[in-house]
Amino acid sequence: MKKNTLPDIKTQFSEWYLEVIAAAELSDQAPVRGCMVIRPYGYAIWEQIQKNLDERIKAQGYQNAAFPLLIPQSFINKEKEHVEGFAPEIAVVTHAGGDQLEEPLVIRPTSETMIHHMFSKWVHSWRDLPLKLNQWCSVVRWEKRSRPFLRTTEFWWHECHAAHATYEQAKQDIEQAHFGVYKKVLEDILAIPVISGKKTQSEMFAGATATYTHEAIMQDGKALQSATSHLLAPAFAEQFGISFQDETGTQAYPTLSSWGATTRLIGALIMVHGDQKGLILPPRIAPIQVMIVPIAKAETKEAVMQACENIHEQLKNKDIRVHIHNDDQSTPGAKFYYTELRGIPLRIEIGEKEARAQQATLANRVDGSKNVIAMSEITMAVQNKLEEIQQQLFDRALAMQQAYITDEDKLSEFGPRIDGSSGVAKTGWCGSKECEAQTKQYKMTIRCTLESQKHAHCCVCGKPSITDCIMAKSY
Amino acid sequence: MKKNTLPDIKTQFSEWYLEVIAAAELSDQAPVRGCMVIRPYGYAIWEQIQKNLDERIKAQGYQNAAFPLLIPQSFINKEKEHVEGFAPEIAVVTHAGGDQLEEPLVIRPTSETMIHHMFSKWVHSWRDLPLKLNQWCSVVRWEKRSRPFLRTTEFWWHECHAAHATYEQAKQDIEQAHFGVYKKVLEDILAIPVISGKKTQSEMFAGATATYTHEAIMQDGKALQSATSHLLAPAFAEQFGISFQDETGTQAYPTLSSWGATTRLIGALIMVHGDQKGLILPPRIAPIQVMIVPIAKAETKEAVMQACENIHEQLKNKDIRVHIHNDDQSTPGAKFYYTELRGIPLRIEIGEKEARAQQATLANRVDGSKNVIAMSEITMAVQNKLEEIQQQLFDRALAMQQAYITDEDKLSEFGPRIDGSSGVAKTGWCGSKECEAQTKQYKMTIRCTLESQKHAHCCVCGKPSITDCIMAKSY
Repeated sequence: MKKNTLPDIKTQFSEWYLEVIAAAELSDQAPVRGCMVIRPYGYAIWEQIQKNLDERIKAQGYQNAAFPLLIPQSFINKEKEHVEGFAPEIAVVTHAGGDQLEEPLVIRPTSETMIHHMFSKWVHSWRDLPLKLNQWCSVVRWEKRSRPFLRTTEFWWHECHAAHATYEQAKQDIEQAHFGVYKKVLEDILAIPVISGKKTQSEMFAGATATYTHEAIMQDGKALQSATSHLLAPAFAEQFGISFQDETGTQAYPTLSSWGATTRLIGALIMVHGDQKGLILPPRIAPIQVMIVPIAKAETKEAVMQACENIHEQLKNKDIRVHIHNDDQSTPGAKFYYTELRGIPLRIEIGEKEARAQQATLANRVDGSKNVIAMSEITMAVQNKLEEIQQQLFDRALAMQQAYITDEDKLSEFGPRIDGSSGVAKTGWCGSKECEAQTKQYKMTIRCTLESQKHAHCCVCGKPSITDCIMAKSY
Repeated sequence: MKKNTLPDIKTQFSEWYLEVIAAAELSDQAPVRGCMVIRPYGYAIWEQIQKNLDERIKAQGYQNAAFPLLIPQSFINKEKEHVEGFAPEIAVVTHAGGDQLEEPLVIRPTSETMIHHMFSKWVHSWRDLPLKLNQWCSVVRWEKRSRPFLRTTEFWWHECHAAHATYEQAKQDIEQAHFGVYKKVLEDILAIPVISGKKTQSEMFAGATATYTHEAIMQDGKALQSATSHLLAPAFAEQFGISFQDETGTQAYPTLSSWGATTRLIGALIMVHGDQKGLILPPRIAPIQVMIVPIAKAETKEAVMQACENIHEQLKNKDIRVHIHNDDQSTPGAKFYYTELRGIPLRIEIGEKEARAQQATLANRVDGSKNVIAMSEITMAVQNKLEEIQQQLFDRALAMQQAYITDEDKLSEFGPRIDGSSGVAKTGWCGSKECEAQTKQYKMTIRCTLESQKHAHCCVCGKPSITDCIMAKSY
């Protein structure tokens, strides 16, 4: 039996993270700096995330399309704040087809500029609005320091882009996206509780007038920005010449918006739910929800395998994603290890005794508890157990998140403490960039501002607070 | 009512093709030379193709994964024939993150080199084989002359890559892919009959020892290579250092293979099935299989819409992809035009008379025939009609293909004739490059060699033929 040799999750979280990814074969380092290969098991998780997002994106009236990965450099330069934000991270194609290009092309770091150019060809009248498109693709942003899934030079994502007749319609659509799609997928499917709010001016998307974020708290107390949605500055529509005739016959600029979520979500799943034995995947997202492990000697093998296949058939008929670990070369212990490391939420053990008694043992990956179930009740028992595990993971993650959050009054008090260990401060802020900049000395940032307000004073300058906010270290 | 103003499909096929794409909003020209944007309706067709391929690819034991789009230039240079084939088409990234790169990076024209590099890290023992991976992505090959879907600088595809312990296993797997996956999807789903065979040495994939192809015949008599599968030269495994210990403990090189199909399939659908009114999509691939068109005056609108929604509900419950064209601004004529142009295979018309009589009129897009059906039998009638249209399209395409193919003996006779108009010659070939090169003077190539042999002599030199082959002009 292969022993679990993962680094200690409490004291070596960062090493644990990298080792889980390698051992569970989620990704591998590519031969290009900062790039990763997503291996089949990691990609299967991404496909589940895609499926959940894609159906909700379409339900909100967005249609999928595909835009070129190469963007003329002049496009990127059109919107002043956009270019300032992205120029340092850009990869440039200077030669193609054996010749030097007249104008260099940039590999998309995001597709606003390309899509806005096309919008200008497609939008003429109020009848063309809203125009709502989505793209699944990869983008490239040159990273000095990479970490698999969390920060890679190339990453995979969906990017939604829309043009709306009015600011109010754009705002309503982007809030529906942020809360109706992202929050639901994060909390209900990935079992990751989030703190939702807005980015400050200095943390906004380059060229946005408002950036909504969901911040998830990892087991080490750091925040991870898990999905963002943007209302874009009027400059985009003006620079790209997107205008339309409204119902009164007047020429007007639409309000543009965009929202995106990336393969970083796989990193969030690992860091929120994993434990010393490896990954733990919430049932609604797990590519394999149930692993059936036969435990048989040569003379009992037939009866045991028969029982396994019966269960497999029954569960498959109920659309449960189930596999039998029937590799003859592995011991039962190795199969348990394999199943645990990969975070498969439910294991069914069938030995000779179980096969004879028409029973099966269900083992819960989260708490290790076991139940013996009559074969006749297996489908219902598995369905219930998967729902139970889903809820259990959310509750556990919420308790973990809540334990990290403390109400704070003074940066000079909580700053050193959080810097020295970990934590998430809920506090007041006067809204000034100067006070925001003070958080940096403790390696923190304002992760988001909050809707509700409870703190009267700015935690830095002590002047009246204009908004509560969350401060934390982050990935 | 908007009039159909498509160019004449018989005399202006090429203009007709471009205009159908524009009018049906399948794709648009991108602001980067040779690149296209795939618009929502075109992308919805691609999603249907993806779904059909993806489930069959997985059923053959391939797993999806994602590899970087940037490849070190030295990788491309490793395999001699591969670099000769792809060097002239490559786009090169020389700068990134504000600096010049030490080694230029190439945007993948295909991923053999990147994936083989990773295989060398993952393959050690016969237990690791076969290793079978698939990737959905876009690739870039610099094109001097582009045509939407058929030949674009960036195109979208799937690419399967595998390593097998033996040549025989590789051959068996690639033949299963080529005939079990591609031929089935082409003929059974896309309703496109194909001529299947192998590419000659000079038309093979750069670095292959055998390339299998399916050639489809377009309405203008030109061939379109519609999917290819390759057994790769041993040099790939050697150059990338992929070796394994076989069951006897001996170090061996695996046989590598790859297979791919692209967004070109959308071009094939247009050119095989379309007619003077626009696109015609086979029901099994159509994003919208049935369009319900209400025909009502203000006073009858409620009853008509109620009938439409009843049918919509019933068909949706049977997983039929159905829409109601309920845009109040359009006349019934405009709705018919819209539905025909987009190639929606079945139209259901509901007027006041139909609503009152509890009937509906089904209109077949292929032959324009109409049937009046009792509302109570609508689901079954629609299912049958869709199957009928699927078969009708295949039969029609097969008859068209067969009418173009003629058995020929002498290139000097059929060459000028095909060059001057169109046609597909089935003939004999001695196997020499010199004779093959003679086809060029008539703008033809050997599209593929065939399994069965009927022609005794080479159509060029008159010496004994070693294989029958198909010669035609092509896209």
